Amino acid sequence: MGIKIGIVGAAGYTGGELLRILSGHKEVAVSYLASDSFSGNRVDKVHPFLKSVLDLEFKAYNPEEIVEMCDLIFLAKPHPSSFRFANELLKKGVKLIDLSADFRLKDVTEFEKWYGIKHDCPELLSKSVYGLPELYYEKIEEANLVANPGCYPTGISLGLAPLIKEKIVSIDRIVINSVSGFSGAGRGKGNENNLAANVVDNIKPYKVTNHPHTGEIEQELGKLSGGEVKVTFVPHVTGFERGIINTMYLSLEKTISQEELYKHYLEFYDGKPFVRVYADGKNPEVKSVIHTNFCDVGVNLNDRTRSVIVTTVLDNLIKGASGQAIQNMNIMSHYNEAEGLRP
Amino acid sequence: MGIKIGIVGAAGYTGGELLRILSGHKEVAVSYLASDSFSGNRVDKVHPFLKSVLDLEFKAYNPEEIVEMCDLIFLAKPHPSSFRFANELLKKGVKLIDLSADFRLKDVTEFEKWYGIKHDCPELLSKSVYGLPELYYEKIEEANLVANPGCYPTGISLGLAPLIKEKIVSIDRIVINSVSGFSGAGRGKGNENNLAANVVDNIKPYKVTNHPHTGEIEQELGKLSGGEVKVTFVPHVTGFERGIINTMYLSLEKTISQEELYKHYLEFYDGKPFVRVYADGKNPEVKSVIHTNFCDVGVNLNDRTRSVIVTTVLDNLIKGASGQAIQNMNIMSHYNEAEGLRP
Amino acid sequence: MGIKIGIVGAAGYTGGELLRILSGHKEVAVSYLASDSFSGNRVDKVHPFLKSVLDLEFKAYNPEEIVEMCDLIFLAKPHPSSFRFANELLKKGVKLIDLSADFRLKDVTEFEKWYGIKHDCPELLSKSVYGLPELYYEKIEEANLVANPGCYPTGISLGLAPLIKEKIVSIDRIVINSVSGFSGAGRGKGNENNLAANVVDNIKPYKVTNHPHTGEIEQELGKLSGGEVKVTFVPHVTGFERGIINTMYLSLEKTISQEELYKHYLEFYDGKPFVRVYADGKNPEVKSVIHTNFCDVGVNLNDRTRSVIVTTVLDNLIKGASGQAIQNMNIMSHYNEAEGLRP
Amino acid sequence: MGIKIGIVGAAGYTGGELLRILSGHKEVAVSYLASDSFSGNRVDKVHPFLKSVLDLEFKAYNPEEIVEMCDLIFLAKPHPSSFRFANELLKKGVKLIDLSADFRLKDVTEFEKWYGIKHDCPELLSKSVYGLPELYYEKIEEANLVANPGCYPTGISLGLAPLIKEKIVSIDRIVINSVSGFSGAGRGKGNENNLAANVVDNIKPYKVTNHPHTGEIEQELGKLSGGEVKVTFVPHVTGFERGIINTMYLSLEKTISQEELYKHYLEFYDGKPFVRVYADGKNPEVKSVIHTNFCDVGVNLNDRTRSVIVTTVLDNLIKGASGQAIQNMNIMSHYNEAEGLRP
Repeated sequence: MGIKIGIVGAAGYTGGELLRILSGHKEVAVSYLASDSFSGNRVDKVHPFLKSVLDLEFKAYNPEEIVEMCDLIFLAKPHPSSFRFANELLKKGVKLIDLSADFRLKDVTEFEKWYGIKHDCPELLSKSVYGLPELYYEKIEEANLVANPGCYPTGISLGLAPLIKEKIVSIDRIVINSVSGFSGAGRGKGNENNLAANVVDNIKPYKVTNHPHTGEIEQELGKLSGGEVKVTFVPHVTGFERGIINTMYLSLEKTISQEELYKHYLEFYDGKPFVRVYADGKNPEVKSVIHTNFCDVGVNLNDRTRSVIVTTVLDNLIKGASGQAIQNMNIMSHYNEAEGLRP
Repeated sequence: MGIKIGIVGAAGYTGGELLRILSGHKEVAVSYLASDSFSGNRVDKVHPFLKSVLDLEFKAYNPEEIVEMCDLIFLAKPHPSSFRFANELLKKGVKLIDLSADFRLKDVTEFEKWYGIKHDCPELLSKSVYGLPELYYEKIEEANLVANPGCYPTGISLGLAPLIKEKIVSIDRIVINSVSGFSGAGRGKGNENNLAANVVDNIKPYKVTNHPHTGEIEQELGKLSGGEVKVTFVPHVTGFERGIINTMYLSLEKTISQEELYKHYLEFYDGKPFVRVYADGKNPEVKSVIHTNFCDVGVNLNDRTRSVIVTTVLDNLIKGASGQAIQNMNIMSHYNEAEGLRP
Repeated sequence: MGIKIGIVGAAGYTGGELLRILSGHKEVAVSYLASDSFSGNRVDKVHPFLKSVLDLEFKAYNPEEIVEMCDLIFLAKPHPSSFRFANELLKKGVKLIDLSADFRLKDVTEFEKWYGIKHDCPELLSKSVYGLPELYYEKIEEANLVANPGCYPTGISLGLAPLIKEKIVSIDRIVINSVSGFSGAGRGKGNENNLAANVVDNIKPYKVTNHPHTGEIEQELGKLSGGEVKVTFVPHVTGFERGIINTMYLSLEKTISQEELYKHYLEFYDGKPFVRVYADGKNPEVKSVIHTNFCDVGVNLNDRTRSVIVTTVLDNLIKGASGQAIQNMNIMSHYNEAEGLRP
Repeated sequence: MGIKIGIVGAAGYTGGELLRILSGHKEVAVSYLASDSFSGNRVDKVHPFLKSVLDLEFKAYNPEEIVEMCDLIFLAKPHPSSFRFANELLKKGVKLIDLSADFRLKDVTEFEKWYGIKHDCPELLSKSVYGLPELYYEKIEEANLVANPGCYPTGISLGLAPLIKEKIVSIDRIVINSVSGFSGAGRGKGNENNLAANVVDNIKPYKVTNHPHTGEIEQELGKLSGGEVKVTFVPHVTGFERGIINTMYLSLEKTISQEELYKHYLEFYDGKPFVRVYADGKNPEVKSVIHTNFCDVGVNLNDRTRSVIVTTVLDNLIKGASGQAIQNMNIMSHYNEAEGLRP
């Protein structure tokens, strides 16, 4: 028998997706589901698709009990409530994967700038590993605290890493236009982007100059380039539930052909089971990755304007959240990276 | 009684929208509807929403008859079939508004480069007036042949004109990311973006480096800047029927505040009934303009990256096609520009 | 100049639709918009599509002021808050159209059974006129208090009236299956059918045996049949915003042909501008009536099962609420019934 | 290693779903994909979600080759082209699961009445087994030719079997109202219900009195009741891709409580892994079963009208087609019925 799993904040969107995936995973047992609001309710009361699939009840969070019953715990609470859980659970020796934004930014002043709140346990930042397996597999293998990447930064980092690492493009004036399904707004009733009247048959930009994922994107691209990177990042929300497309605009620094670009991406992601690169200037579409852990990548040379346009798509609830968290769990537990995640 | 109207190609999406608007217009009478495929059928067979609204039949196109019965004719045929109609109808002395792309590009080599076909009557190019009323009202008043702008170029030109005319931004590396509803693909069964299975719950880029509207956008921005302009323009299609959002990224050339930007736009469009400028870095959404002739504009200063982000939204079938054509008709006929188009 | 209009509860869905229609109405002036929650805000803050269309602010409700400034007032508050407004405003001599359910049921015990609350001013029930113009035009002309019908009962009554009045069908075992867009749930954050996650790509039945519109439907069909009628009515909600389809199943009592059925409906609605009857066993679709005041009707004979299937569609926000309210206003004010409502 | 699978007609919607499921099935190998139109193309050219999941090419259909390479073959051709394949493949001794309508109706005159074509191999009708595992598990175990049920009849039979077998309801005047996503119309360009413009933001009835599934429904309910059954069945199509809801209206014959009804259903489906019964008059919604092989059932007593309302939902491409076909394959191959189909 495999490892035992707990989830704190199991009643949200990402909690539901974790459970959907875990219920088909051969190596693990879900042992403890904590939810403040739904303690005492059966899991299918909140996630009706789990009826007859998973026979469990939500419990009130109890740190002693959860640590005793679990080997690895997912923190799926809405930001910024992971601090106290992370701190007390790590001390008790359990492994953690945090799906919030709390441990992604290494620089505490950057965190406080982008999120507008004080960081409660900055001492954990140096211990957390950024959980993007295609770039940091070995570190994740050794980690006790994995910061699961944001939905936008996942697709953006995967799309730009091959270009930036090889300095094929300028790091000045990177433009990133992203469109997300409404599930990115979570399930809380306070968020107006949850209301059907606001998203169906609609598309609108939001946080045009100050989306907090900007800091995470700049940190990650900075690590790849070896210097400071600034990006202009504009997210939009539209009326489908799942999926993100990132359309990224860069200026060429080197002379390179469409075919060479494609081959470079293909080599860069050789052996990575969840990144699919498109040939011949073809571009991916959201529908091809929905309900999967894939991030699909298209790369386009525009000769007229000496620019490269990179497009990436992923399911924000899977590769952009819960699927990637399971991928991290697999790596931390020395299972096959793709276990439970295919097709 | 007012002028008499004919439509050639009245059975398509834009033909239907022309009829929807004209049926509520106080000053005109619809007299002749030509459709090759639906000749002999009642109009509501093709456009069910017109049942009990408009009691007319489609006829086979007959140039003598249509000229005799009409003062002004809309050409709503899919590109590139307007050439022969335009030529023979103009000679007979009727006024024309062409909704296709055939007379938008002034430079015949540009036309042939972007559309990949020979232009059949280049001699008409110098006579045609580009029908963007907010910029060319007086010329439209005098025109006999108006080239109704493309859906993307309409929103893009209106969004960028105030910046480019005043040289507030650099004309190098203009990036334009557009998302359109599926009605932009027309109604022909050949187009795969018409199929529900390809667009619902989906978003995908198309013609990433070679959309023919690029030529039209560059022509129009070039006129405004007084020099050559190149843009990187990537359109996408998604699963709502109507609406376009253009998100445009530009580099600042001058020092200007958010408030000054807003005031500049407000002045630029003072007295223009169909452009609405948003204050305070607010941005428009597609849903606010659907089924209207408005083009709404948001303008955002991003200090961190020294860039301006402009967003415009419009209904591609109204301000991006049939509504703008009616606006042009009103101007050519010396009616109130907004007649039949409000609210 | 025409009459002056006030709206109480002008910030909701139906308030917005009233304003959209009134802003294009030639005969009236909107004078007073009351909203508790948005008092002091401009109207386009809540209804962005009204930017540059209607230049008004919401005010706190003040009965003296509203009566002084208005000739006719729409009550567009969510049920059940119309009682006190109706009572005090009627006494002051203004005409009222109530869009809530408060004055539709003539029998106060029926009201209290279906709505589960006490009726605060039962004395007004005998004075209120049920505002279905196709059946009660003359009464509406004379009314001071019109109870605007519910969205489901409107399409159901119009669909069944010709059959039931002529006793073509049995009134036993009438089955009504209805599907509504999510705007039927209003805009309040409390209603889970407002959340995109609950309605997009979904359809679900709700209030399967106890929807309060059942009482209204039975009252109206009872008036038509001259006896007591019971119906099995199951509403569903799905992921489009606007529109209702009612599919109604009845047992034949008489021998009648498809063609005779069609002609009977055609005659029944002769001269009614907003009911369109489909020939040849064709059936209407929601999309043909969206954003219009039409109720489209299809009637189908099923010989095998000796039954009639009637389908009706309407826009729940227009013919099912605000459009019908304007139609009632036109009739009460002796304007053309269709003024402001076409096409 | 397990059995080898072939698919004839592998490029359609149901073919794609078969491949999606089979690619995660531990016991089988996909060996042969026949497609006339896409012979020579890689499978992900048609089904982009299969990129990097399944590395196969479509081939032209060759009966000798497919029989040599496969143990069991799915016929996923659009009706009515299964006749010749079934005949020649069965003779060669391979097992067949036919997803078309060709072998569902046992009575050849019923087939010809509902489908309007001659049946080419009526001699096979007596050999085919109706593949509804919840009712015919043992017969399916022994079958060489399984007729996979239609999408509507699957949910309708599962919803009504417990009532009809126990004679709890009258079999007179059964009313069935069904709503399907647009994928029910297949992917052929000829079908107008494939066009986004016709289904998005829309719902419409179709084949109101003559849908061919009516014959299949009446055959199955007749088997359950032991007598002739006629139903009034009206299908509708709407703008989501996947899912069907059947809302079924029946007259009570016996006195029974809501709780007894629920328990009866629960017992009837005890041990059936893919039918989930809802307690307390709760009803299922399409979203809970999408992308799964579940058929969820709600049962409601309406005391006022002495009727029972049964609601069932399923994913028309999974439990209504390809998932059920895999379930049948599992049973015919003596695997666990649910292999590859969870969660």
